Amino acid sequence: MSDMNTSTFITLEEMEAATDALLETAKKVGADTWQQRAKNQTPHCKFGEEGICCRICTMGPCRITPKAPRGICGCDRDGIVARNYLRFTAGGAATHSDHGRNITHVLYLSKEGGDYQVKDPEKLIRIAKEWDVETEGRDIYDIAHEVAEIGLMEYGKPFGTQRFLKRAPEVRQKVWHDAGIEPRAIDREVSQSMHMTHMGCSSLPEALVRQSLRAGMSDGWGGSMMGTEMSDVLFGTPKPVDTNANLGVMEKDMVNIIVHGHDPSLSEMVVFYSQDPEMVALAKEMGAKGINVAGVCCTANEVAMRHGIPMAGNFLQQENVVLTGACEAIVVDVQCIFPALGPLSKCFHTKFITTSPIAQMPDSDYLEFNEATAGANARKIVETAVRNFKNRKPELVNIPNLKTNATVGYSVEAIKKCLDGVTNSHVDEVGTTKPLIDCIKSGVLRGAVALVGCNNPRVRHDYSHIELMKKMIANDIICIVSGCSAQAAAKAGLLSKEAKNLCGEGLKRVCELVDIPPILHMGSCVDISRMMILASDIAKDWNVDICDVPVIGCAPEYMSEKAVSIGNYVVATGIDTFLGIDPYTKGGPQVVKLLQGDIKDWVGANFTVELDMEKMGDMMIERIEEKRKALNI
Amino acid sequence: MSDMNTSTFITLEEMEAATDALLETAKKVGADTWQQRAKNQTPHCKFGEEGICCRICTMGPCRITPKAPRGICGCDRDGIVARNYLRFTAGGAATHSDHGRNITHVLYLSKEGGDYQVKDPEKLIRIAKEWDVETEGRDIYDIAHEVAEIGLMEYGKPFGTQRFLKRAPEVRQKVWHDAGIEPRAIDREVSQSMHMTHMGCSSLPEALVRQSLRAGMSDGWGGSMMGTEMSDVLFGTPKPVDTNANLGVMEKDMVNIIVHGHDPSLSEMVVFYSQDPEMVALAKEMGAKGINVAGVCCTANEVAMRHGIPMAGNFLQQENVVLTGACEAIVVDVQCIFPALGPLSKCFHTKFITTSPIAQMPDSDYLEFNEATAGANARKIVETAVRNFKNRKPELVNIPNLKTNATVGYSVEAIKKCLDGVTNSHVDEVGTTKPLIDCIKSGVLRGAVALVGCNNPRVRHDYSHIELMKKMIANDIICIVSGCSAQAAAKAGLLSKEAKNLCGEGLKRVCELVDIPPILHMGSCVDISRMMILASDIAKDWNVDICDVPVIGCAPEYMSEKAVSIGNYVVATGIDTFLGIDPYTKGGPQVVKLLQGDIKDWVGANFTVELDMEKMGDMMIERIEEKRKALNI
Repeated sequence: MSDMNTSTFITLEEMEAATDALLETAKKVGADTWQQRAKNQTPHCKFGEEGICCRICTMGPCRITPKAPRGICGCDRDGIVARNYLRFTAGGAATHSDHGRNITHVLYLSKEGGDYQVKDPEKLIRIAKEWDVETEGRDIYDIAHEVAEIGLMEYGKPFGTQRFLKRAPEVRQKVWHDAGIEPRAIDREVSQSMHMTHMGCSSLPEALVRQSLRAGMSDGWGGSMMGTEMSDVLFGTPKPVDTNANLGVMEKDMVNIIVHGHDPSLSEMVVFYSQDPEMVALAKEMGAKGINVAGVCCTANEVAMRHGIPMAGNFLQQENVVLTGACEAIVVDVQCIFPALGPLSKCFHTKFITTSPIAQMPDSDYLEFNEATAGANARKIVETAVRNFKNRKPELVNIPNLKTNATVGYSVEAIKKCLDGVTNSHVDEVGTTKPLIDCIKSGVLRGAVALVGCNNPRVRHDYSHIELMKKMIANDIICIVSGCSAQAAAKAGLLSKEAKNLCGEGLKRVCELVDIPPILHMGSCVDISRMMILASDIAKDWNVDICDVPVIGCAPEYMSEKAVSIGNYVVATGIDTFLGIDPYTKGGPQVVKLLQGDIKDWVGANFTVELDMEKMGDMMIERIEEKRKALNI
Repeated sequence: MSDMNTSTFITLEEMEAATDALLETAKKVGADTWQQRAKNQTPHCKFGEEGICCRICTMGPCRITPKAPRGICGCDRDGIVARNYLRFTAGGAATHSDHGRNITHVLYLSKEGGDYQVKDPEKLIRIAKEWDVETEGRDIYDIAHEVAEIGLMEYGKPFGTQRFLKRAPEVRQKVWHDAGIEPRAIDREVSQSMHMTHMGCSSLPEALVRQSLRAGMSDGWGGSMMGTEMSDVLFGTPKPVDTNANLGVMEKDMVNIIVHGHDPSLSEMVVFYSQDPEMVALAKEMGAKGINVAGVCCTANEVAMRHGIPMAGNFLQQENVVLTGACEAIVVDVQCIFPALGPLSKCFHTKFITTSPIAQMPDSDYLEFNEATAGANARKIVETAVRNFKNRKPELVNIPNLKTNATVGYSVEAIKKCLDGVTNSHVDEVGTTKPLIDCIKSGVLRGAVALVGCNNPRVRHDYSHIELMKKMIANDIICIVSGCSAQAAAKAGLLSKEAKNLCGEGLKRVCELVDIPPILHMGSCVDISRMMILASDIAKDWNVDICDVPVIGCAPEYMSEKAVSIGNYVVATGIDTFLGIDPYTKGGPQVVKLLQGDIKDWVGANFTVELDMEKMGDMMIERIEEKRKALNI
């Protein structure tokens, strides 16, 4: 369909050259970009960077200095750092979980013939049975509504802990119980985190870090998992699908609608109406060849893995799509959307369409998207974009010649199906992770790394993601990826099956045998819950605890509170986690000692913060080898 | 009982002289105090003070400067200020509401003969009827448990808005509906506030300020009201009771147990066990004459208004109680507790006893208080304090000779009962606020001011509270007070009926006729919900909207997030609110314009921030006169 040919691999330098050309356009039209703003904001405030600034009450702000070792209330550096860390986590947990709530509410609104329907009834019935919902002889939408209502109650039920915890191996459930980090109602963990960090509540690092793990757990085994599961029920559980990535997926002669954000309830509808014959006809009337939808950020992952919609780029590429001059509309819902898109879009013909009451921004066209009137709202959004094609300024159009192939959509279900392909069904059970375990035991695969998280101007865009992935696969470590990390891989060509050629011999053999890329796209950032299920299923099939499995997590370029919430639940799940950016904790030595040390005694895993990617890669391989050794493999 | 005589009035200068003497002790023992820490923290960070520093993601921290008018994400000064403001509010709403949740859960645990029992069944039945809970022929504890469960569901119900909203005049309910600020589940408003302020969500000041009002409403007409109502059911609805205030309530020859914090479920039990004959005998065995419990901060309000327990002081006096050298234990639960009490207590024999998992602090003795084992826990706490008497160092004992009389406990029910006393029950309805309305209409009273909130080292301790109160009552404006403001009044003698002599002629006459002090103590900071009910009942009895009544709110020395949450719900309720401390907003001109201007169009009230107390007093009187004029009275 596209004018451009795809490349097998694209180097960082090629991407950077394309960005430089786009920044020239920015200069020409007088647009501001993150590259400039990041410069303007450097050097950053040292107090903030170290986490030793407190604004939790209006006696302050207070800052820890040699002259002032305590805040006015008497809180010391570790108390301040730990409170800030818990609030950071709570922000992320609330955000992810609220996304999950919205999806669950959409399931509640689903109906036969409606805008939203149940696309994976099998998964719905599986969840219904897990939750003791009667399924026999019932209408699928009755089941859907009951499951949705129970799901919504997980956010606010006055008693009990999260239902999904039961999915973990029993030994891990016991760890959570003993550590006192089983999350209760999701919103309650957020509220209690805010309460604990209020002026004059907790300042003991142990208590605050413990609650951080618990709040994170309410996300990973609560709200995020809800988001993933209900999205699958509504929009289909992802299966491997081919797509393209990088800015070259934008089409010079078509109406380009960029969907950006996180919640598939918007993007699914935009995709649907972009294929509406009336809309396509209107596009032609406007002089375009048709309508091209492409994604940015996690929304890209959502629509790529369910519809093969191409991925234009990740977080730090969101301005680039506008700078191509070929973006008729950038349609956003929630999270990780640069407010900069407002003023930037004004320098072009681009419509910056905000849609969510949760995410309202200046200089945007606010076309509210309400799930109860989803179809009509989405149609209007698509029409607005299409009608904007005629306003395009051809002299500003510059779509970089960058496009790769990618295979995406490796849900846990899909991975197991791939593994079934190499299972002798006459001898062995199907639907398990045992073939993968066998590969790890035999040493053909050394282990697995989950690479996740955002981009961050503090470090070279995508460098850490791409370099770490290459290093891992070259060392026979299979990668599972999500979020902007997944898109970094896609943009570089690492999600194509051709990437097997960058692998060590063992992993290459596995890729060929199972017919998979060495880096498996598992979805958006809420879908790290899929990774938890995978790790959990491996541990169960292996009959060990999750912390024993040679699997580690890594967020080398993260920037959002969600990523810190994720870090907390990944670690709490027993998976050592490597961070390439400090979570504003280095001013609190006791907090550092807990997060990067002692919490291992609570949950069998902890954090490593390492800014040097070469070193970090080595440490990750070393950690995997240590785990192998402990298992005597 | 005490060695000391009471004074009618105590001046600020007398209090300050006493504090100075205690600071001498501090110097002697090498203790740190807030006076010194406040000095060390000055000057404060200008970015933080103006609200233009953002640490919501790890791309930053970002700060707005002329060179850098936007953060890295592109958020401008107003977006940053508004996000910080909403998070500040959410912190307060979560904190107050979590207190309310705990009390509601205690009601759920109540049982015949248990540690917690229903002391006001009449109020319980009133709430039960309001909530359509069957009451006929049912055991009171069955009703209690059902009401408690419904109450707990208000925190997390997936659908609908807060039940207590229905208590407001219909015209006000419509205002809330039209403004889009009816709060849904309490915790959901907190979580959504965190989500809205996450990186890349809302940066539009209108949207963020609107959610601030809504989050505040979830506190004032949700969590705080739950806290007040369920506390009354469990521990009795306050009635006027005489007590004493200021540091002189501590007893030289007795075991002094200071209860500090907020949640009466702890302090009620400590009070109970301090009267246990075995404990009193133990105290005598230790060489003391008995056990004296006194309160600090909101806990002081809770136990004073229900048991006449004396009030040692307010927020900025919490270190002073330890500095007397006569404090055997300072027993705390949650909120507004200086972490400084840890190291400070180590300079004396004082036990700093933390009790709540929510509020754990270094250098404290953590004796967990669990409502399910409340009696045993409280007994142990009291015993620990009593046994500590023998460790007192007599050479460090210095209890300032400051003690006043105070009448406290004016719940709405109590105020109406007072008003019934001047109602001709043959002619007029009883149990209304009409006699008060008649006084206002006739001009004998000009109006009412609710004076609330904390202390803050940014301003002279208690000065604003006391000066504003004196000015108001001298101008025939009756005051209702709560929290640390109430204690400022009490300490100065302004809660005694003698204070009528400081009033204008009109108010003095009312005080004599109704037999009340001119400043009515309505309770702790959650009890500002009582003020909302009072304002609401006045509006209903008057048949006007709340914003029409000549009533205003004022928090001249506040410091906590709770106070900002309160401000939001008081304004949203239609009551103009005057703040003596800037809520970190002055760096956002659009935010200032909304809060101090345009939100009046949404809810009929707004904020005034004024740091000069002389001016503020004049403005408050002026505002009341404006409201009178608008009513043609």
